[in-house]
Amino acid sequence: MGLALAEALLAQGHPLTVWNRTAAKADALVAKGAHRAASVADAVLASPLTITCLNDYDTMYQVFAGAEEALRGRALINLNSGTPTEAHAADEWATRTGFDYLDGAIMVPPPLVGTPGAVFLYSGPEGVFTTHRPTLASLGDPRFLGADPGRAVLYNTALLDLMYTSINGFLHAAALVGSAGVPAATFADLAVNWFLPTVVDATLLAQAEELDRSNYPGDLGSLEMNRTALEHITRTSVEQGVHVDLPRLAQQIAEQAIAEGHGDKNYFAVFEVLKKARAGA
Amino acid sequence: MGLALAEALLAQGHPLTVWNRTAAKADALVAKGAHRAASVADAVLASPLTITCLNDYDTMYQVFAGAEEALRGRALINLNSGTPTEAHAADEWATRTGFDYLDGAIMVPPPLVGTPGAVFLYSGPEGVFTTHRPTLASLGDPRFLGADPGRAVLYNTALLDLMYTSINGFLHAAALVGSAGVPAATFADLAVNWFLPTVVDATLLAQAEELDRSNYPGDLGSLEMNRTALEHITRTSVEQGVHVDLPRLAQQIAEQAIAEGHGDKNYFAVFEVLKKARAGA
Ligand SMILES: NC(=O)c1ccc[n+]([C@@H]2O[C@H](COP(=O)([O-])OP(=O)(O)OC[C@H]3O[C@@H](n4cnc5c(N)ncnc54)[C@H](OP(=O)(O)O)[C@@H]3O)[C@@H](O)[C@H]2O)c1
Ligand SMILES: NC(=O)c1ccc[n+]([C@@H]2O[C@H](COP(=O)([O-])OP(=O)(O)OC[C@H]3O[C@@H](n4cnc5c(N)ncnc54)[C@H](OP(=O)(O)O)[C@@H]3O)[C@@H](O)[C@H]2O)c1
Repeated sequence: MGLALAEALLAQGHPLTVWNRTAAKADALVAKGAHRAASVADAVLASPLTITCLNDYDTMYQVFAGAEEALRGRALINLNSGTPTEAHAADEWATRTGFDYLDGAIMVPPPLVGTPGAVFLYSGPEGVFTTHRPTLASLGDPRFLGADPGRAVLYNTALLDLMYTSINGFLHAAALVGSAGVPAATFADLAVNWFLPTVVDATLLAQAEELDRSNYPGDLGSLEMNRTALEHITRTSVEQGVHVDLPRLAQQIAEQAIAEGHGDKNYFAVFEVLKKARAGA
Repeated sequence: MGLALAEALLAQGHPLTVWNRTAAKADALVAKGAHRAASVADAVLASPLTITCLNDYDTMYQVFAGAEEALRGRALINLNSGTPTEAHAADEWATRTGFDYLDGAIMVPPPLVGTPGAVFLYSGPEGVFTTHRPTLASLGDPRFLGADPGRAVLYNTALLDLMYTSINGFLHAAALVGSAGVPAATFADLAVNWFLPTVVDATLLAQAEELDRSNYPGDLGSLEMNRTALEHITRTSVEQGVHVDLPRLAQQIAEQAIAEGHGDKNYFAVFEVLKKARAGA
């Protein structure tokens, strides 16, 4: 990912100094006009803004050990993945040390970095974002999420969560129809080209504001009815000989919401269950 | 749902005879020009095609007990939900009794019946579908899925499976960002208006044909990397105090796929796990 970020900055004509633990990995960048710094401190001192994309926060602290003095009065934008707690700790480290810090997350794979639709998320002091926005725009579409430095990594985690769950949902549904000989590509045409955008996404958008009000009116269909449908999906999965844990868990979550008194509300009332840690979990 | 179907047929000017166990529920239909039959047999004898939408298959058999003679030489299209095994049994009952049978499933709620985008799924003998297609087109957009009578109810179950899983994925992700004070509606704007259609749906469409070849090349990212990301989602869910079972199950499924030798393939290799009943499940 570091290479992709550097390539995008070079392609937009930014003066660029690079440092990587394994120095030889930057050879192609140097051939294209990047300067190679001999040390992390030298790299930082070469420009007002340093961008890092290492494995994790611990690696970042290791890399800057001994180069903190160089950061003072400059800006660091860190793009590795992590948890909100880790992002908050990095923000405190920056305040303590005396440099501007913005935490970010990259929502695309390396080949899409630098393309217009590539979303990058940022959170932290808005002024730092505004100052460096033109540079960040060379990497993709920069979206500012607010002053809480933990938001970028948290959004990143939530979107990946949504991605894995949605892919699993599609794969399990494809396994169900596949058990009767329907190709996944045939199913995808109806499921992805029609059902997901037209039915599911429209429902999510229509309900999102009600979620913030914990308002789940059951007049068009109740959680009790959905529980029956989920039992039916579980039973059909058993009957067709495919994996059953995903629908069974969805059924358990609906049952828990009913046990907590939401049976006559609509399906979105399971949000009340998903917002809480399960007792004993 | 029966009322919505009858309304749509009346609105298109079809001559219509109705029967319902609780006869008074058809009063509004009769006021609009429907004939009320005194018995199930009379209702069937009034036209070449009978459409039923009862709770389930058992109810259908109860309703037609004593009226099977009337069905002979005519056509029945049944729209209740069920399992492929139940649909096959209904098809055999029709063959034994001597009438045309088509099994169907309704993919929209009652208020959308009769609107152009309302998808109805059908499976069974293609000739029966072709003969009655003009009538069925009054109910919505009829899609024929093939001769296997179990396909309509199986597709219906698979699409609902996809719907509940996708909604749960969105709600869990909204719970994650909500734990840091982000409104669900704010998250939906990025997640539903950008991420799901642009990233997730595009990935599903790109991979669907490879699923049918069990081909999961890992050159752009391996299941081992995805397992790390899923562990991260689980850990963040614990840290933020939200429900953890959904990401934990996704992690277990990825771990099972790795244990079965798919660690260097891409994420879609979990399809190999989801296609099989879990040992002991
Ligand atoms: N790849 C993606 O698709 C993608 C997408 C979005 C976000 N991300 C995030 O971006 C970050 C980096 O991912 P990546 O795919 O670029 O990983 P990667 O290919 O493994 O690169 C890791 C980088 O960290 C350096 N590093 C690791 N340990 C170090 C140490 N102890 N001291 C100094 N340098 C060290 C490596 O240097 P060497 O070259 O010397 O090993 C390398 O430059 C991760 O947080 C990831 O979650 C990745
Ligand atoms: N509602 C939806 O959003 C929707 C969407 C797609 C598919 N479906 C499917 O459509 C089917 C019907 O759903 P629905 O929502 O219309 O259910 P519903 O409102 O409960 O209607 C059930 C119908 O079955 C009749 N019935 C039940 N038991 C009977 C018996 N023993 N003898 C004779 N008639 C009996 C009822 O007659 P009475 O009026 O006399 O009780 C009523 O006409 C289900 O398979 C459902 O899965 C529904």
